[in-house]
Amino acid sequence: MNDSTLAPVFAHIEANRAAFIARLMEYVRHPSISAQNIGIGEVAALLEGHLQALGMAVERIETAGHPMVFGQLGNDPARPTILLYGHYDVQPPEPLEEWLSPPFEPTIRDGRIYARGVADNKGQHFAQILAIESLLAVKGGVPCNVKILLEGEEEVGSPHIAEVVRRNADLLRADLVVTADGPMHASGQGTIVYGVRGVASFELRARTAKRDAHSGNFGGVMPNALWQLVHLLATMKAPDGRITIDGLADAVVPPTAMERAAVARLPLDLPGVMADMEMAALDAPTDRGYFERLMFHPTLTINGLHGGYGGAGSKTVLPAEAVAKCDIRLVEAMEPEAVFAAVEAHVARHAPGVQVVRQGAMRPSKTPMETPVAEVLRRAVEDARGAPVLEFPSMGGSLPDYVFTKILGVPAFVVPYGNADEANHAPNENLTIACFMGGIRTGAAILTALGDWRG
Amino acid sequence: MNDSTLAPVFAHIEANRAAFIARLMEYVRHPSISAQNIGIGEVAALLEGHLQALGMAVERIETAGHPMVFGQLGNDPARPTILLYGHYDVQPPEPLEEWLSPPFEPTIRDGRIYARGVADNKGQHFAQILAIESLLAVKGGVPCNVKILLEGEEEVGSPHIAEVVRRNADLLRADLVVTADGPMHASGQGTIVYGVRGVASFELRARTAKRDAHSGNFGGVMPNALWQLVHLLATMKAPDGRITIDGLADAVVPPTAMERAAVARLPLDLPGVMADMEMAALDAPTDRGYFERLMFHPTLTINGLHGGYGGAGSKTVLPAEAVAKCDIRLVEAMEPEAVFAAVEAHVARHAPGVQVVRQGAMRPSKTPMETPVAEVLRRAVEDARGAPVLEFPSMGGSLPDYVFTKILGVPAFVVPYGNADEANHAPNENLTIACFMGGIRTGAAILTALGDWRG
Repeated sequence: MNDSTLAPVFAHIEANRAAFIARLMEYVRHPSISAQNIGIGEVAALLEGHLQALGMAVERIETAGHPMVFGQLGNDPARPTILLYGHYDVQPPEPLEEWLSPPFEPTIRDGRIYARGVADNKGQHFAQILAIESLLAVKGGVPCNVKILLEGEEEVGSPHIAEVVRRNADLLRADLVVTADGPMHASGQGTIVYGVRGVASFELRARTAKRDAHSGNFGGVMPNALWQLVHLLATMKAPDGRITIDGLADAVVPPTAMERAAVARLPLDLPGVMADMEMAALDAPTDRGYFERLMFHPTLTINGLHGGYGGAGSKTVLPAEAVAKCDIRLVEAMEPEAVFAAVEAHVARHAPGVQVVRQGAMRPSKTPMETPVAEVLRRAVEDARGAPVLEFPSMGGSLPDYVFTKILGVPAFVVPYGNADEANHAPNENLTIACFMGGIRTGAAILTALGDWRG
Repeated sequence: MNDSTLAPVFAHIEANRAAFIARLMEYVRHPSISAQNIGIGEVAALLEGHLQALGMAVERIETAGHPMVFGQLGNDPARPTILLYGHYDVQPPEPLEEWLSPPFEPTIRDGRIYARGVADNKGQHFAQILAIESLLAVKGGVPCNVKILLEGEEEVGSPHIAEVVRRNADLLRADLVVTADGPMHASGQGTIVYGVRGVASFELRARTAKRDAHSGNFGGVMPNALWQLVHLLATMKAPDGRITIDGLADAVVPPTAMERAAVARLPLDLPGVMADMEMAALDAPTDRGYFERLMFHPTLTINGLHGGYGGAGSKTVLPAEAVAKCDIRLVEAMEPEAVFAAVEAHVARHAPGVQVVRQGAMRPSKTPMETPVAEVLRRAVEDARGAPVLEFPSMGGSLPDYVFTKILGVPAFVVPYGNADEANHAPNENLTIACFMGGIRTGAAILTALGDWRG
């Protein structure tokens, strides 16, 4: 593969700009809100139509929740196989009043398409579909086997993907998995992400008496559920930011030299990030680099803490009940089961009356940067973008990549096509037209480069 | 005074049992909810009528908020003067659905009158009024000068009583102040309380960024407002229950030998209290006696702590904002101003980004148990109840007694007439008929005993 082979494909993509934009706008006009069970069946059927139009063998994979849509093009054992993963479900659009245009009436303003799901994830996997379509149109074929798996429950935590992957391991087998999701770096440079943090969510529930009491009549006598949680939480993370739950980080695999080197190459406008968020300081511990914090260390976040009076003014109440919701982000090779066990042992030791309620969890995942097929992606992304690729050993957030790396045993990469300010999960979600078009080109470049690969 | 002098008064009270109950029920039928500004003027006017019917000189004392009603009977400089303090405003009745009978339709069940305000405080000061009426009816007069001050803002923190007392010091001057409010001991023995704890309420407000963030994308980078409050609060009180704010307790006056002896005489059914509240343990520190905790030590109570997600399930949010509402109960001779200053200095030292917002405050108060006129109350309460009096050096809660002891310079006592399970501030507030009748007798006994007193 070289520029000369891609040039006519890119020309075709550019020639179809208006049509591709119109077709994306038509696609995102259909709500598919997994959390509210709105439009799921309709959009799954729509997608099946799109894949069939490419000549793909299409199959609906039913789950106990929303179905997944699977398509396959080519099955030549002499050729490499790529599995493209994405999700057709979207976040609920609320709060509606904050949208400048209605979430399911896609609108173009200043070179951006605004709609719920346009960036997360419809616009990104639709770019993959259009890349395949463009290769078929210009080249008459795709030079590798392509599988595509689009799930309908990513926005509610992908509760069935592990089971689906386990059950369909042969069907899904590939040489690599590529997920186009999330934002690229703010510079607009192409991005490859090799890993994700996992997560383990849980509640701490304290109850110290049958009912709330008066802080005068019982203050000093009745234990306060909020104080109980405050003192327990203070034993779980020190003021210096270090997590102090015994054994929690035992499984952590330190970053490799290649990962450290990649992080050192990443551009960072720290004053810009801090100004944008109006942060006076970075979180403790202070002796870690910005990316190191997000990629190489677990975190213990209190997502919410509620107990007692929360209205206006004061109320002299002594709360009998309080709940803290927490999540721990896991780095390779922490396991949710061991993490929950460490938390439970810690709480049993420090506050035996407090109940730990396990909630959702997801394993971390990391594909070694040394993986040979990564070279295909680096080259393809640079070809499509015309600029050096930025390589992230991990992202701070979580995606169910472990189902590919740990269940399927296949290297998995995230190659995002979205703009940095895509406003995922928020009002006025948007995808720039430039990013959308770049995504189609990148998708075509990846499939083309993979066709040349003889791993 | 002896039994023979009180007997006809008690007989009169008993003979009028049905009428007195009916008149109390009529009185509490009228809402007077200070927090919601409902019925205040009407009930103040009603009260003025009651006092005028006793032949009292009545005066309405206007404030910037709700008015106070003042009445005076007798002005003989040779006689001792008592000031009876109470309040005619009541708590809001919500939640209405938990009342077995409507809060302003007084209903008798099992020897109790159920109505909002029947115990707190209408039934108690109405018993005082009926005591005066009964003495007038049987004896043709009251053997001491009586002043009565009924405020309309006690349930919203008595914001104007200090100013009213300061402005009307001559009008209010007395040899002692008696407040009939709150519950008697569960045994039903007569009770005298010599002091109250003060209180200083404040908010701690943390903000670490412009907006909440995603715990994956920012976990480890952005400071968490909840962690900031947790770590700050943990510096303010140790897990062993001791307050660790420098200088906070500097002004505390330790209890006298007489106070310690009084506490040692108080009956206590600790297993009963703990079972009733379903408390597995008393609060830390563990080396303090039950009453000692409530009377002789300040407390730091978190009244409410709120930040981040509080709905069902989990949400991977990193909160930028959190608020803790706290109160400190003050014991003699702590001063709110010094307490606020100590809190502010502590927060500035440990978490300079956290904002301290001062809210309401009330000074503590204590009348020495050695005060000569206390003997009058002990004798009268024992005469009326036919059982030894229980003496509490302090209550755990707060009342604005400091306006009498510290502004007016007059010894102040709380002599409660309510039943221990009166359910103040709660649905199904009630006053037993036995307590109501005992209150009228006690009121008459106090005025009679004071007539004999030559302090």
